Amino acid sequence: MNASLFRFSIYIAAICGLYLATAMLIPSMVDLYYGHADWRVFALCSFMVGGLSLMTAMATRCPPPVFTKRLGFLLVNLLWAVFSLVGAVPLMFAGPGLTFPQALFEAISGITTTGSSVIVGLDHMPPGLLMWRSLLAWLGGIGIVALGLFVLPFLRVGGMSFFKMESSDIADKPFARLATFTRAFFGIYVGITVACMIAYDFAGMSHFDAINHAFTTVATAGFSTHDASFGYFRSDLILWVSTFFMAVCSLPFSILIVFIVRGRLDSLRDPQIVVFLGYLGAFALATAVYHHLVNAVEFDRALTHAFFNFSSLLSTTGFASEDYTLWGPFVVMAAFFATFMGGCSGSTAGGIKSYRFVILANIVVIGLKKLIYPSAVYSVRYGRQTVEPETQRTVFLFFSAYLFLWVVGSMAMSAFGYDFLTATSSVITALSNVGPGVGEVIGPAGNFSTMNEPALYLLSLMMLLGRLEVLTVLVLLMPVFWRT
Amino acid sequence: MNASLFRFSIYIAAICGLYLATAMLIPSMVDLYYGHADWRVFALCSFMVGGLSLMTAMATRCPPPVFTKRLGFLLVNLLWAVFSLVGAVPLMFAGPGLTFPQALFEAISGITTTGSSVIVGLDHMPPGLLMWRSLLAWLGGIGIVALGLFVLPFLRVGGMSFFKMESSDIADKPFARLATFTRAFFGIYVGITVACMIAYDFAGMSHFDAINHAFTTVATAGFSTHDASFGYFRSDLILWVSTFFMAVCSLPFSILIVFIVRGRLDSLRDPQIVVFLGYLGAFALATAVYHHLVNAVEFDRALTHAFFNFSSLLSTTGFASEDYTLWGPFVVMAAFFATFMGGCSGSTAGGIKSYRFVILANIVVIGLKKLIYPSAVYSVRYGRQTVEPETQRTVFLFFSAYLFLWVVGSMAMSAFGYDFLTATSSVITALSNVGPGVGEVIGPAGNFSTMNEPALYLLSLMMLLGRLEVLTVLVLLMPVFWRT
Repeated sequence: MNASLFRFSIYIAAICGLYLATAMLIPSMVDLYYGHADWRVFALCSFMVGGLSLMTAMATRCPPPVFTKRLGFLLVNLLWAVFSLVGAVPLMFAGPGLTFPQALFEAISGITTTGSSVIVGLDHMPPGLLMWRSLLAWLGGIGIVALGLFVLPFLRVGGMSFFKMESSDIADKPFARLATFTRAFFGIYVGITVACMIAYDFAGMSHFDAINHAFTTVATAGFSTHDASFGYFRSDLILWVSTFFMAVCSLPFSILIVFIVRGRLDSLRDPQIVVFLGYLGAFALATAVYHHLVNAVEFDRALTHAFFNFSSLLSTTGFASEDYTLWGPFVVMAAFFATFMGGCSGSTAGGIKSYRFVILANIVVIGLKKLIYPSAVYSVRYGRQTVEPETQRTVFLFFSAYLFLWVVGSMAMSAFGYDFLTATSSVITALSNVGPGVGEVIGPAGNFSTMNEPALYLLSLMMLLGRLEVLTVLVLLMPVFWRT
Repeated sequence: MNASLFRFSIYIAAICGLYLATAMLIPSMVDLYYGHADWRVFALCSFMVGGLSLMTAMATRCPPPVFTKRLGFLLVNLLWAVFSLVGAVPLMFAGPGLTFPQALFEAISGITTTGSSVIVGLDHMPPGLLMWRSLLAWLGGIGIVALGLFVLPFLRVGGMSFFKMESSDIADKPFARLATFTRAFFGIYVGITVACMIAYDFAGMSHFDAINHAFTTVATAGFSTHDASFGYFRSDLILWVSTFFMAVCSLPFSILIVFIVRGRLDSLRDPQIVVFLGYLGAFALATAVYHHLVNAVEFDRALTHAFFNFSSLLSTTGFASEDYTLWGPFVVMAAFFATFMGGCSGSTAGGIKSYRFVILANIVVIGLKKLIYPSAVYSVRYGRQTVEPETQRTVFLFFSAYLFLWVVGSMAMSAFGYDFLTATSSVITALSNVGPGVGEVIGPAGNFSTMNEPALYLLSLMMLLGRLEVLTVLVLLMPVFWRT
């Protein structure tokens, strides 16, 4: 491993630290505006982190080395580690005074757009703290979409390389240069956020709530400014607005860009979009019918809440309108498995993701056919494209690694003293960057404030692993990675 | 689909029905010996089933068609369906008078060597009924080993074809003819059963208990003649004898044959054996240490019970020495995941099986290496052999189909009204042919007697699917299977 790679990675991380230090001025100004003393905490943290980052950047400044996959992996891991640590700093001193593992958990939960929280009494927290959480999530959202668009396809992680080929039509005329594409991407991310903000505002949220929830909706993060999450608002309109934006932000950004810039409706016929909307509809409808029949709830009310909560789970946002785990065992089970699934590639959503299920289902059907006609030639397809064996293998790799982490994580959580439901669902909700689990402790009505230290560290690690598509982190464990 | 295939399949099924009718005379004689009136039930059933089978056999007698994969799939499915139905007949009339779905569940649980029971009060059941359950399991054990040795490799199901190649060294001199190999196989199956019987008898069981438990140990089935299972005997010696035989019967029979007939110790160095014994040791040791530390149980007692219960789970037998789910959350979790794992190929054990984990782990490690050096050539290995992409794909296919069934089955069970733990663990214990689950209802201290009808039918189907390596059954759902 070349020393210049480290030097350059640290340089980039320091630059990013500088941006994050600047971002801390926003909650500082918010607290100042609302007259809360915490503005000093954010200002001081900004000054300290900014200074340290500036010095590090100056000390490590160097010409960029040739971009290799090794540098890519190193950089991605380092950046998310730095974001997490820097994000945690103000959380230790502002508001409720979290311990270090709690602050780290909360920051990672934000930056990975998970939305699990260790803070109780959100309704009475200083506005700057709430804004900082939302901001971390929103920045994490930009980060992950950029990663999915520009870096992961190059690193060939988890079958993402597939979308490099696919987005070749993006590379033609209107997006000839990466810079144009990047501008379009930032423009649309900001645009959707503003649209969401205005929609929330019109639907009846306060300005402050609208801004915060727009940030965490677009990032599919799920942090709320109220302990009751969306239950606080008691408004079906707000639920449907949120349902719409959560679903939109689970769609591939590259396709959203093509759709918005070119107005090409057919770009939405991507199999992963069809499958994602398909299972969203199936989960929500089945739950609505069950809720209607078993608990005698009016059907339209059941439908609104089922669509909202399952959009929230499948887009890996993690808002809740009420404690749906009380609706019956089928809903607990559906919520549990929905936590694995996730949205589309190149979006802010986490989870296994629908395009992997498309490829998986294709492999299974063709495998069954081949059992009958072993010598027939079938090819695994994704829409009209053929999926190379290489990509099939990476999808399989991701799938196995994901389940392996879930199993090992659940065993560890149970060894830390947590019951079956809390252990298994806390690990998968962290790994998929969803937010709530399904047990009594961490269900939609609970939170992570009672978790012990080893559990907080483990779940923080799982959130990072899940956010970076698992393999990006696991690759660091291979001795071959560190050999020159 | 050719009509002669059906005719021939029905003919073979009728012949097997005839054998099973003959087998019913054994519990009849047992009841007669112990002076229980149920002997008439078994004698009558034997007469009826035998007569029907004989007539069917005579009516459908035909020259065997050319053996194709289609015929293979059809035959295997039909045979297990017929065994299940015929096995259920006496259970509806003897002993406690089960309903049809209960009797079917109990028979399928036997024939698939699962060992889940709907009967409460085993200690007071007529001996003929107990013997019939044990006998069904023992015959199911022969059936599955024969299937794994002679049929599945040919059908190329779930990567089993792999062991066709591997056992090529069995095909040379001493086993030149299939008949010799078959004789060796039956001889060894009966031999191990007798050895187990004698060992149980010496360790202190009654003759009747020794015979019944030897049948269900060697078949890794798990039916007991006592509600308390092995807890009834209160003997560490019996636990260790059972641990030994359960582990032995989870090893590949082809390798046991080579080992016993040729005395070749190196044949035991098969990677799947090493991995199976490896995870057995790891689960048992971790549980013993946890049980010792958390519940302050003496270490040797903890070790005995941990080894017994995890041998039971990993060999997919399903005996229990006590309610290990009371030992703490870690043990519940370990037992739950152990239920997925299973033994070796070509044994009486079910589950995902260790050789698939060997191949899986190899694919994952090589996938990670390839992320760093994409152009390097690595091959997936099983011991010293290379695993063809074809086999890798089948393993993947099996793995996906297995998990898919678990998810869908769990959702269905929760819709039938069962809580999360009961739903998820009942489906996996059925699919892996283990026996007990981990909830309050179906845990090692409970049984399936309170299950409602839809649940019994679903779990019966899952047991059959799991026993026939899933794909053998799923292939029937493909329209292409039925086209000529």
